[in-house]
Amino acid sequence: MANILVSTVPFASHDRVPLELLRSVGAQVTINPIGRRLQEEELAELIPATEILIAGTEPITRKVMEAAPSLRLIARVGVGLDNVDLLAARDRGIEVTYTPEAPAPAVAELTIGLMVSLLRNTHTANTLLHDGQWHRFMGRRIGESTIGVIGVGRIGSRVIHLLSSFGVRRFITNDVEPRGDSLQGIDVEWVGQGQVFREADIVTLHVPLTLDTRNMVGRPQLDMMKSDAVLINTSRGGVVDEEALHRALQDGRLGGAAIDVFAHEPYQGPLTQEPRCLLTSHMGSMSIDCRSRMEVEATREAVLFLTGESALSPVPEQEYLIQSQAEGSNR
Amino acid sequence: MANILVSTVPFASHDRVPLELLRSVGAQVTINPIGRRLQEEELAELIPATEILIAGTEPITRKVMEAAPSLRLIARVGVGLDNVDLLAARDRGIEVTYTPEAPAPAVAELTIGLMVSLLRNTHTANTLLHDGQWHRFMGRRIGESTIGVIGVGRIGSRVIHLLSSFGVRRFITNDVEPRGDSLQGIDVEWVGQGQVFREADIVTLHVPLTLDTRNMVGRPQLDMMKSDAVLINTSRGGVVDEEALHRALQDGRLGGAAIDVFAHEPYQGPLTQEPRCLLTSHMGSMSIDCRSRMEVEATREAVLFLTGESALSPVPEQEYLIQSQAEGSNR
Repeated sequence: MANILVSTVPFASHDRVPLELLRSVGAQVTINPIGRRLQEEELAELIPATEILIAGTEPITRKVMEAAPSLRLIARVGVGLDNVDLLAARDRGIEVTYTPEAPAPAVAELTIGLMVSLLRNTHTANTLLHDGQWHRFMGRRIGESTIGVIGVGRIGSRVIHLLSSFGVRRFITNDVEPRGDSLQGIDVEWVGQGQVFREADIVTLHVPLTLDTRNMVGRPQLDMMKSDAVLINTSRGGVVDEEALHRALQDGRLGGAAIDVFAHEPYQGPLTQEPRCLLTSHMGSMSIDCRSRMEVEATREAVLFLTGESALSPVPEQEYLIQSQAEGSNR
Repeated sequence: MANILVSTVPFASHDRVPLELLRSVGAQVTINPIGRRLQEEELAELIPATEILIAGTEPITRKVMEAAPSLRLIARVGVGLDNVDLLAARDRGIEVTYTPEAPAPAVAELTIGLMVSLLRNTHTANTLLHDGQWHRFMGRRIGESTIGVIGVGRIGSRVIHLLSSFGVRRFITNDVEPRGDSLQGIDVEWVGQGQVFREADIVTLHVPLTLDTRNMVGRPQLDMMKSDAVLINTSRGGVVDEEALHRALQDGRLGGAAIDVFAHEPYQGPLTQEPRCLLTSHMGSMSIDCRSRMEVEATREAVLFLTGESALSPVPEQEYLIQSQAEGSNR
């Protein structure tokens, strides 16, 4: 009987299909007993007998893999791979799969909501009113804004698509490789990253966490931004230097920021003291439909693996290359 | 020299054009010295010498008009007319203008932001995180929802338009007179009000305040709604029975509510005790561009009046008829 550890949280909380799939193959299933993102040590303690890991964003390091001699498959529930040591997995013959398409609709919708909140100060008005204070904030409109999108993959391009009916003044976009100047019929201008920071009224980040993007937004970038521009990060913790953002907001820079992902989660850092920073708890993919799709897709990879079939979404070679280059430059 | 009272708040706070327009005609301008929505008595005390009133949502009653024997024009900054006694104005030969188009873009965008906040609990997560508590809320997507729109005029139809790229499952709409089953190429189903309350995941209100819409959403309507449906009111205070909503939320009904407009403002009622009620401070039209357009349009009416030209947006006969019918039924 296959030994499966589900380390991601939550799991099957609104849709029982993933659990039924695992039951249908007669697996021995252990579900994260701590109920939050595991630390490396906690995972290493839970993992020894595991053959298949259905994983969230907890650190799946070489050390963790060494504690799991029978581990054959890591099925990530989600798209980011910064928490998985892909090279260690390859060294040990462990297959890795992910769910690249599933989170995008939920992350993109959340991003639009955060944009409106920041431009209109709804989160601040809400806090004040619940505290007995009535203040009518004067805001701005998406339709009057220049939107800067850094990272125009599955999620970034979907954000642009959702905004297509808002009459956005101008989209300025940046990615590793610029594409055409029209995305599904929407005009975009490919510019350098500096120009995005300097000219956008809203800067929204949709990049993976890599050596190139770690602390991509620090004080120099924040200082380039317009005095009333807003910053949104629904991508990965570590892309924005949280300390630098906190100091910039304290200094009265920016019109505000919305941060959903943090270098260390659960987050308890200084941004919690800054009312102009709208904070959410890594909820980008947390819509019932997307979360369910992610869990079902990852679970299906486990089932396919057990029945000897090939994976639907193995992690592409490109991801191994990125980690390999990062390791090279760390030496 | 014409005597002009500006009772609306704010005024010319981000755009000086309205003040310059008034200066260009050499008017004697008094600006609301209290800095918030005036009560009837306060307005009556300020108004005696006024010939032109540039007005917000404060009560402009027969009594107020009787205190202003020289009043010849009321230029409303905004679209709602529930605060102006149109019949008293007509009796006294006072012209009334409004700015029907200007607020719509800002109100519609705010509504979309409130939808995402409610479906994803961003406002609640934000409050908790600033209080040191990390909770990952499981939410829902607009793209998976049935959207119920009550009142499909300038603002309601714009809300539908903004959502056209979200892949909404189904729009169910209700208004005094149903129109075609396609709005700018988007399929909508015209249904009775009860069906909107019963079937929508999101109910959003975009009606004027009239005899028919006062307390339109009370406990019976709230009890019809799905257990996890959300309610949004960015239209007029008085349309939703605030006490009934508070009790329903306390009883655990609904997935949440977002209320921007209140029967009495500044609002300090019991909804401030309910974390599941997202509260904003009558900020629907409060974007720099729309507010500026409203103020410029109302001020232009004042200038046209002083130079003997006809009004651009006199209040249509239909609005007098509505108030006349309401008065008839009150007798």
